Amino acid sequence: MYRSFKILLGIVLLILALILGFSTAKADQITPEKVATAIDNVWVLITAFLVFFMQAGFAMVEAGFTRAKNASNIVMKNLMDFAIGSVIFWLFGFAFMFGKDAGGFIGTSGFFLSDSFKHLGLSIPLTSFLMFQTVFAATAATIVSGAMAERTKFIAYCIYSAVISFIIYPVVGHWAWGGGWLSKLGFIDFAGSTVVHSVGGWCALIGAAMLGPRIGKYTKDGKVNAIPGHSITLAALGTFILWFGWFGFNPGSTLSGMNDKIGDIAVNTNLAAAMGANLAMIYTWLKYKKPDVSMTLNGALAGLVAITAGCASVNAWGAAIIGGLAGVLVVVAVEFIDKKLKIDDPVGAISVHGVCGAFGTLMVGLFATDGGLFYGGGIKQFLVQLAGVVSTFIWTTITAFILFAVIKLTVGLRVSEEEEIEGLDVTEHGTAAYGDFVIKSQTVK
Amino acid sequence: MYRSFKILLGIVLLILALILGFSTAKADQITPEKVATAIDNVWVLITAFLVFFMQAGFAMVEAGFTRAKNASNIVMKNLMDFAIGSVIFWLFGFAFMFGKDAGGFIGTSGFFLSDSFKHLGLSIPLTSFLMFQTVFAATAATIVSGAMAERTKFIAYCIYSAVISFIIYPVVGHWAWGGGWLSKLGFIDFAGSTVVHSVGGWCALIGAAMLGPRIGKYTKDGKVNAIPGHSITLAALGTFILWFGWFGFNPGSTLSGMNDKIGDIAVNTNLAAAMGANLAMIYTWLKYKKPDVSMTLNGALAGLVAITAGCASVNAWGAAIIGGLAGVLVVVAVEFIDKKLKIDDPVGAISVHGVCGAFGTLMVGLFATDGGLFYGGGIKQFLVQLAGVVSTFIWTTITAFILFAVIKLTVGLRVSEEEEIEGLDVTEHGTAAYGDFVIKSQTVK
Amino acid sequence: MYRSFKILLGIVLLILALILGFSTAKADQITPEKVATAIDNVWVLITAFLVFFMQAGFAMVEAGFTRAKNASNIVMKNLMDFAIGSVIFWLFGFAFMFGKDAGGFIGTSGFFLSDSFKHLGLSIPLTSFLMFQTVFAATAATIVSGAMAERTKFIAYCIYSAVISFIIYPVVGHWAWGGGWLSKLGFIDFAGSTVVHSVGGWCALIGAAMLGPRIGKYTKDGKVNAIPGHSITLAALGTFILWFGWFGFNPGSTLSGMNDKIGDIAVNTNLAAAMGANLAMIYTWLKYKKPDVSMTLNGALAGLVAITAGCASVNAWGAAIIGGLAGVLVVVAVEFIDKKLKIDDPVGAISVHGVCGAFGTLMVGLFATDGGLFYGGGIKQFLVQLAGVVSTFIWTTITAFILFAVIKLTVGLRVSEEEEIEGLDVTEHGTAAYGDFVIKSQTVK
Repeated sequence: MYRSFKILLGIVLLILALILGFSTAKADQITPEKVATAIDNVWVLITAFLVFFMQAGFAMVEAGFTRAKNASNIVMKNLMDFAIGSVIFWLFGFAFMFGKDAGGFIGTSGFFLSDSFKHLGLSIPLTSFLMFQTVFAATAATIVSGAMAERTKFIAYCIYSAVISFIIYPVVGHWAWGGGWLSKLGFIDFAGSTVVHSVGGWCALIGAAMLGPRIGKYTKDGKVNAIPGHSITLAALGTFILWFGWFGFNPGSTLSGMNDKIGDIAVNTNLAAAMGANLAMIYTWLKYKKPDVSMTLNGALAGLVAITAGCASVNAWGAAIIGGLAGVLVVVAVEFIDKKLKIDDPVGAISVHGVCGAFGTLMVGLFATDGGLFYGGGIKQFLVQLAGVVSTFIWTTITAFILFAVIKLTVGLRVSEEEEIEGLDVTEHGTAAYGDFVIKSQTVK
Repeated sequence: MYRSFKILLGIVLLILALILGFSTAKADQITPEKVATAIDNVWVLITAFLVFFMQAGFAMVEAGFTRAKNASNIVMKNLMDFAIGSVIFWLFGFAFMFGKDAGGFIGTSGFFLSDSFKHLGLSIPLTSFLMFQTVFAATAATIVSGAMAERTKFIAYCIYSAVISFIIYPVVGHWAWGGGWLSKLGFIDFAGSTVVHSVGGWCALIGAAMLGPRIGKYTKDGKVNAIPGHSITLAALGTFILWFGWFGFNPGSTLSGMNDKIGDIAVNTNLAAAMGANLAMIYTWLKYKKPDVSMTLNGALAGLVAITAGCASVNAWGAAIIGGLAGVLVVVAVEFIDKKLKIDDPVGAISVHGVCGAFGTLMVGLFATDGGLFYGGGIKQFLVQLAGVVSTFIWTTITAFILFAVIKLTVGLRVSEEEEIEGLDVTEHGTAAYGDFVIKSQTVK
Repeated sequence: MYRSFKILLGIVLLILALILGFSTAKADQITPEKVATAIDNVWVLITAFLVFFMQAGFAMVEAGFTRAKNASNIVMKNLMDFAIGSVIFWLFGFAFMFGKDAGGFIGTSGFFLSDSFKHLGLSIPLTSFLMFQTVFAATAATIVSGAMAERTKFIAYCIYSAVISFIIYPVVGHWAWGGGWLSKLGFIDFAGSTVVHSVGGWCALIGAAMLGPRIGKYTKDGKVNAIPGHSITLAALGTFILWFGWFGFNPGSTLSGMNDKIGDIAVNTNLAAAMGANLAMIYTWLKYKKPDVSMTLNGALAGLVAITAGCASVNAWGAAIIGGLAGVLVVVAVEFIDKKLKIDDPVGAISVHGVCGAFGTLMVGLFATDGGLFYGGGIKQFLVQLAGVVSTFIWTTITAFILFAVIKLTVGLRVSEEEEIEGLDVTEHGTAAYGDFVIKSQTVK
């Protein structure tokens, strides 16, 4: 009896010790769960840094594809849309995008980051998530500078930058990623072909259309002049930087390094970009008899934009096809916008980000291995994708129109003819970008 | 009795098995602790790589802000201060900085990395820590090349590079981060506003002052000529690269990916840079009637430098304010140094790194949420910060003066007037940077 | 009796509960093993992204070291070898390299990524491994564009790109890394001094030799003309980018972030690059009386190439010595190939990647701390290294010769004299790289 009691006591103590051991582990020690959260956090931040670096890519692509006399102005715009956008998105945009949902349309809480955003159920720290979302918002903003290059007033561009980061982008972001109506419909835009790229692209469309073409772009006798950029090497560098940054953009959108699909997403992203470049090259080679460098660079970007929606839903074959088609589509779209619509988009931003963003979003409805039309999923997903593409187009074009109309009526949208001919570097900022070089006064007449 | 014995035996065996299981786990298996160390290691290395990449940023900023005829020379200096510094810091600097403390002043053990540096209590491998510290040391070194650009003998610069990595930087590093007297005082310089940036900035001050201005910078009738750089696009690219690299510099300085503050630090870093650019733009817009591109680029860098000390101690609001103030301060400082002190600093390195580094370090005393004056912590932290700023200024300016004086008396500090006019690319290295372009012989007279 | 039974039952239940707990953990919960795999996956992907970015580095180095009239063509080649190579390697090259071994010579399974490649025993997802291997394959391909710059038909280069990624590189890769005969011999080429760099370098040798020199390079009276590049700043930027990317190339080749040698490898990589730059600078300074910028940039790259084989086998001293020797060797090799062999390699790719790749591979036989001659390991490892170097040379030069001969006989290898003089940008692509700048018609005669 006494011995049995001692034995029982021993067992009880053993169990208590085990329980104590486990609970101690949870409170003070390093657990697999904590480590997993740290991996997610490290992953989100490093990929956010890569996405930040895309700003340098946009600056180089846009500067390279435009004239030397406007190069300082272009890089200044790229710098400032990020600088202005970072602050505006922190104070307002993030709340409109991820605050508590109102009617599926907009977030309504957490302005000035005053909320803990517990309803998002994040495992990573809120600031890491904010960092990631800030660089995405800035990507949407910076797309527009290229389409409006070489003739937009700098003050107008600053105001535009603030507004897109304040409300235009966050609302679409809320619809798709912040618990809004598109996410409830089952809309798939994994990393933002629509949310980021086509929002930027459609703003660019409205902006470029309302600005009108650069002097000399379209002559009275109906001729369409090409106005070549001042540095293909910088444009190529920018394209490589963007491709590099996209490895943050797409795989990072898992928000988790523990997610074992990040390798698939990286491969899909790469194949789409490669096929975009390959088919743009082949298509221009057939069409113009020479493989066109600018179009091939844009082909790579088109592939990247197009795969952004479906990179986690399609397989490698789907990614290659989507990217390749985007590489052809971007050439067709650039020609159509340039020659038919006669909208002057110096860098092809509308085609790359708007058209290929919409295209890639729709393709998810066909190529998604789970639910896509080509994989037996029926037409439903495609229609949902279409709803997202159309609604984003409507929202963005209307708000961008209002925005640019107000700017036009107040501070003005476009520089004077004299300023445009002299170049925005000197007239808007007082500095030439290339003080030491002999520059041709390249204004097509 | 016999049964009870068997039961007892069973329990003992069970406990032994459990102990054995646990100890086996610790010896051979993957434990959460090991995985956590691996995350820290991966984090430290990747952020170190980002900081390395800042060398490209410095090279582009400095080349872009100076003339085409000296561009090869500038990038060569940026390459060589890293190449020389890496070797010197490995052999000597690291030991002076992190060796066993002597009187709070200097490290004294582990030259040639002969020691295991057990006293540091690192969880990550020593080589990873060395890698991280090497790229920091090289950052301090490379700051100086910009301020001394376009007129310094190349051999003089090589000697300077070796000495700053050998002793000037490691001593301050020891004070603040190697267990020296500043760290014992409670000095907060999380990622090196003072340790890295102001050490570089004050060396730049002494170097630029002792060199004298470039020919044509200050005329006899008191006119101050601006000598514009040869590529604002490269300067902008460099600024973006530096901003990108700073996401390694500041968040990496936790030395731990497990540290859940890395998101906060990234956001603070970004907001300070953004506000630096914003306010520099606004301030120059008001002052010169046009938003100045060079100054705005420097404003972003000023914000980054200023937040480096306090990025882990202040909140987002504090970061935004510190960065914004630095954006104004850098413009004021550049003008003061250029026009009042008449020290010719072609890229503004003294203002960006020296002045804003000191400023940011002091601001920790005001804005630190734990111990800062504005958060009820009293004046104590501010005074400690002041002690760090002042002592670093004294140490660095004295040692830099001795160094440059010795160089001047031996190999000479400055190229001849003919060489300066022709450009250092041809006279020092035998190659023009831009052989294919027509370059204006831009020498202000 | 009854009590003892209950106690025994209790113990059995306890053991069952523990077993159940453990097995549940393995099925559903986050385990240290899963987290460790995630770290490896994150590490492999991020380092792969860094290696991808080396494409930008190659583009900038090669464009910078060649003339402005061919700059678009150079960057186009760099873009397309990656775009073509990514697709070809995915469909075929990966299978030849990592498919099931046939006779130690070649892989034979998994074309179109149809296999799960279970025989590789990867812990990380297959796609992550494919991503990493793709960027390595593309590095080998892109090396060649520099040596063949300024005179190769674009179509010829596209065909070459496809073939090196299809079979030339994968076969050597299979020998050393895919379970082939070199790996069975104990050949050490950790990250590819031979597998990647010398394969590229020897293809470059054959290509440049078969193309013949650029017009004006060698005059009839035996003079060797230097044809300077058009932008040393871009070349320097490219070098910094390559150095940055190499921190992915070498440490990433552990394929594991859990591997605690990644810090050692990073430090070795950095010291070798630094010493390569230092000794190339000193050597050219002594030889030409001026420190040569281009050669010093190539010296850093030579150090990087040379340490790539042994970065995980040598200590820091070994790395510094290997890198330093490579810095001298590259200068000697460039002169020898340029002036003795009279093979025109505009960027020095044969010397940097071929010669220093072979050199670094051999040095592992001397400096490996485990098995190297200088550490008491005898001559065996050196002979194995020699076997790898020689067999790679033979395979690559023969297949490259056949490839370029077939190209020459079909589409042709070289542009016409008129096209070469006008520049490949306009004649091959219809666009000048620098439309706004006044370019000297720099053709040495």
